[in-house]
Amino acid sequence: MKHNKIIYPVFILLLSSQISDIRSQVPDSVVIKKISDEIFTSGECYKNLEYLCKKIGPRLTASPGAEKAVQWTNELMKNYGFDKVYLQEVMVPHWERGEKEVGKVISGSSKETAVNIVALGGSIATPKEGMTAEIIEVKDFDELKKLGKEKVQGKIVFYNYPFDVKKIMPFEMYGAAGKYRTTGAIEAARYGAVASITRSMTNYITTVPNTGAMHYNDSITKIPACAISTQDAEWLSDLLKKEGKAKFFFKTNCQTFPDVKSYNVIGEITGTEKPEEIIVVGGHIDSWDLAEGAHDDGTGCMESIEVLRVFKKLGIKPKRTIRAVMFMNEENGLKGGIEYAKQAELKKEKHILAIESDAGGFTPRGFTMTMNDDSLPGGSVKKEKILKWKDYFYPYGAYDFTRKGGGADISPLKKQGVSQMELSPDNQRYFIIHHTARDTFEEVNKRELELSSIVLTMMVYLVSEYGL
Amino acid sequence: MKHNKIIYPVFILLLSSQISDIRSQVPDSVVIKKISDEIFTSGECYKNLEYLCKKIGPRLTASPGAEKAVQWTNELMKNYGFDKVYLQEVMVPHWERGEKEVGKVISGSSKETAVNIVALGGSIATPKEGMTAEIIEVKDFDELKKLGKEKVQGKIVFYNYPFDVKKIMPFEMYGAAGKYRTTGAIEAARYGAVASITRSMTNYITTVPNTGAMHYNDSITKIPACAISTQDAEWLSDLLKKEGKAKFFFKTNCQTFPDVKSYNVIGEITGTEKPEEIIVVGGHIDSWDLAEGAHDDGTGCMESIEVLRVFKKLGIKPKRTIRAVMFMNEENGLKGGIEYAKQAELKKEKHILAIESDAGGFTPRGFTMTMNDDSLPGGSVKKEKILKWKDYFYPYGAYDFTRKGGGADISPLKKQGVSQMELSPDNQRYFIIHHTARDTFEEVNKRELELSSIVLTMMVYLVSEYGL
Repeated sequence: MKHNKIIYPVFILLLSSQISDIRSQVPDSVVIKKISDEIFTSGECYKNLEYLCKKIGPRLTASPGAEKAVQWTNELMKNYGFDKVYLQEVMVPHWERGEKEVGKVISGSSKETAVNIVALGGSIATPKEGMTAEIIEVKDFDELKKLGKEKVQGKIVFYNYPFDVKKIMPFEMYGAAGKYRTTGAIEAARYGAVASITRSMTNYITTVPNTGAMHYNDSITKIPACAISTQDAEWLSDLLKKEGKAKFFFKTNCQTFPDVKSYNVIGEITGTEKPEEIIVVGGHIDSWDLAEGAHDDGTGCMESIEVLRVFKKLGIKPKRTIRAVMFMNEENGLKGGIEYAKQAELKKEKHILAIESDAGGFTPRGFTMTMNDDSLPGGSVKKEKILKWKDYFYPYGAYDFTRKGGGADISPLKKQGVSQMELSPDNQRYFIIHHTARDTFEEVNKRELELSSIVLTMMVYLVSEYGL
Repeated sequence: MKHNKIIYPVFILLLSSQISDIRSQVPDSVVIKKISDEIFTSGECYKNLEYLCKKIGPRLTASPGAEKAVQWTNELMKNYGFDKVYLQEVMVPHWERGEKEVGKVISGSSKETAVNIVALGGSIATPKEGMTAEIIEVKDFDELKKLGKEKVQGKIVFYNYPFDVKKIMPFEMYGAAGKYRTTGAIEAARYGAVASITRSMTNYITTVPNTGAMHYNDSITKIPACAISTQDAEWLSDLLKKEGKAKFFFKTNCQTFPDVKSYNVIGEITGTEKPEEIIVVGGHIDSWDLAEGAHDDGTGCMESIEVLRVFKKLGIKPKRTIRAVMFMNEENGLKGGIEYAKQAELKKEKHILAIESDAGGFTPRGFTMTMNDDSLPGGSVKKEKILKWKDYFYPYGAYDFTRKGGGADISPLKKQGVSQMELSPDNQRYFIIHHTARDTFEEVNKRELELSSIVLTMMVYLVSEYGL
């Protein structure tokens, strides 16, 4: 690319006015403009996402959809002619929702009101005939503790912990509320509860419930756990205030089967100068079963493949090795991420950076970063290097490089000292669709997805050229 | 508000680390946090927008919907208890679309194919029985000129000027293409064309056509003008390439009636220290007739009312006068904006800043600014003052204060030296809905609208406290 002398006046202007020490690298701006033009005019990310969502659909780990997605992304990357495309075996959990759940509130006047619930991923089912018990509402674990065994025993604990909408960032709201989904059943069972219901993880008041992973603790009785829509949670809470008490009937039909073999899918373009230095860009190919896994995380996977496709199409030969990884089983186990890190260690691979895209396919706002050795001089040096490129990203709306973060799938690489980064898109719309039946292709905007693909490709390009 | 000593650690941290000269104003951060909390937890903008869209609906100037919206916003602001709420008379044009348009392409093999068209606002209609003529495609005015009278005479000119998707900002694409809608009929008629069809103003390939204003020139024959959907434009262009020529039949039923009386709606909270210094925040209450005018510009109007409502609710007494203005007739005449400026001049009002919100109700990205005396020291001083507040906006995602701009409605105030500003939201989704049947309430996200309301209120608050 370097001998291409076409000069794009807008970019040159931008560079000369805003970055004084980068003139020697002017050709980067040309490459970046080519990347941008390619994706805006001939991008394949959106159409690939359409295929993944509409022809393959839901991709819960160990489901036929997940396996189809493995085969298809493998084929897709082979067809694009990447240098290496291969599957990486990994044993994964196999949980199935079964028939649609039923939930009803039975209030004082023996009236039954249907509510929208979904079983949480990993939960055991209720007995076949369903389960009925008195509901006890708590806001948080403190309230649960105060009630104690006496008041909780034999009841269904209803965690009604709302997202704190005063926060600006929805992911921060999620951060605070998430534990009532993941460990709510453990804590409820500790006090003798027979089941737990968690208010759905969203800042929107909606009838659509969100699923998501939950865990058990082997030393504590396993009880069935489900999520209730926020609208029904608000209604139920009001009812309990008015009527003093109410019973809950629910029936879930989920089941855990023995682990099965599945795969991470890996595509690679080998570096020309330092092939041993690897840059990973990835998302997770599994999704929840309720919809098409469009934003979570079809977009991250398709963006990652798009990055390598653009290198190939434009004939950019990366100095360092770049890899697109479709991680399996992020949603209910992280087995793919763990296996990837394990294999990297066994093969003594040297990853210089892992970038995840798993926060939705909206317009980019920036990147979060956790440089492995943040507390040491090395981490700051790496961050400073990246910040020097900031002005390339600014016109594309990616302005924020201040937050810490990385993705779940790449987190197991941390132990090997691999720097972490995550694409940070606008996320105000995220929790309308996250883990719900609404996470469909229609919720993804073509241009927003293209912008995210562009900034990801730019970042991978710059790191592949200059290292960290 | 100033004696309120509650301190929000996050904001203080932010301020102390990023703004060194603003410590004396620490209480501003408290006010800003209160504004933010009020809008996130008890905001009324979204529910007001729902009323405007669902109970009133389309609001083309001089339509019953527009008049209802005038009465309703007048009542709404009175009910909020603003200091002054009044109507400002203005004569406005009265154009009606009439019955739905019909468009067909008749190609070589005498096949008729229906295409999606809409009459452009202000156009004359075709004859009652419709109009049929040969189509001649041009990309731009240069191509039209080259063809000349000989080849254009008696034909229908089809302007197929696409949005340049290589640009990052959709409004820039619009800027380049817009003239084929506004003045395409004039230029076509200059060469003897009998009608003009313009490719819809959007970067998306869609079956939904966009309407919008067009103009005539009194010295040139008036010919009917319509817009065709981008998908049909692409198809038609391919057909013309393949078959060499084709005819177009279309029938539009629009009509222009005599001007009628309408109103701008103005709400005001009078300043306590410098009531003569006025800050305007506004949007346009009229909309196109094809949908609910949600993003264009219901959101701008409802945000502007929300700004004043929040001052009132929180008991913030502005030092300077703040005004919410619902301008009438932005879409097809700008009569409201012109009248507002005229009355301001007659009354010798001193506007220190006019802020418009008319670029969609999406997440805020920043503000565009045109300070009246940009070329003089005064303009830079004002900009610098605003830039000192930048860090208040950054956490809300409003980071960009670099672009020039203002809104159409406030532009007539420029002659009086009034500084101009416009809220600049993320606009990648804008041209899917702009001027189409898709501009409905459902396309607006509650949180995104709240964020825009917050940054607008913050800006009005800061300017009302410190002037410019």
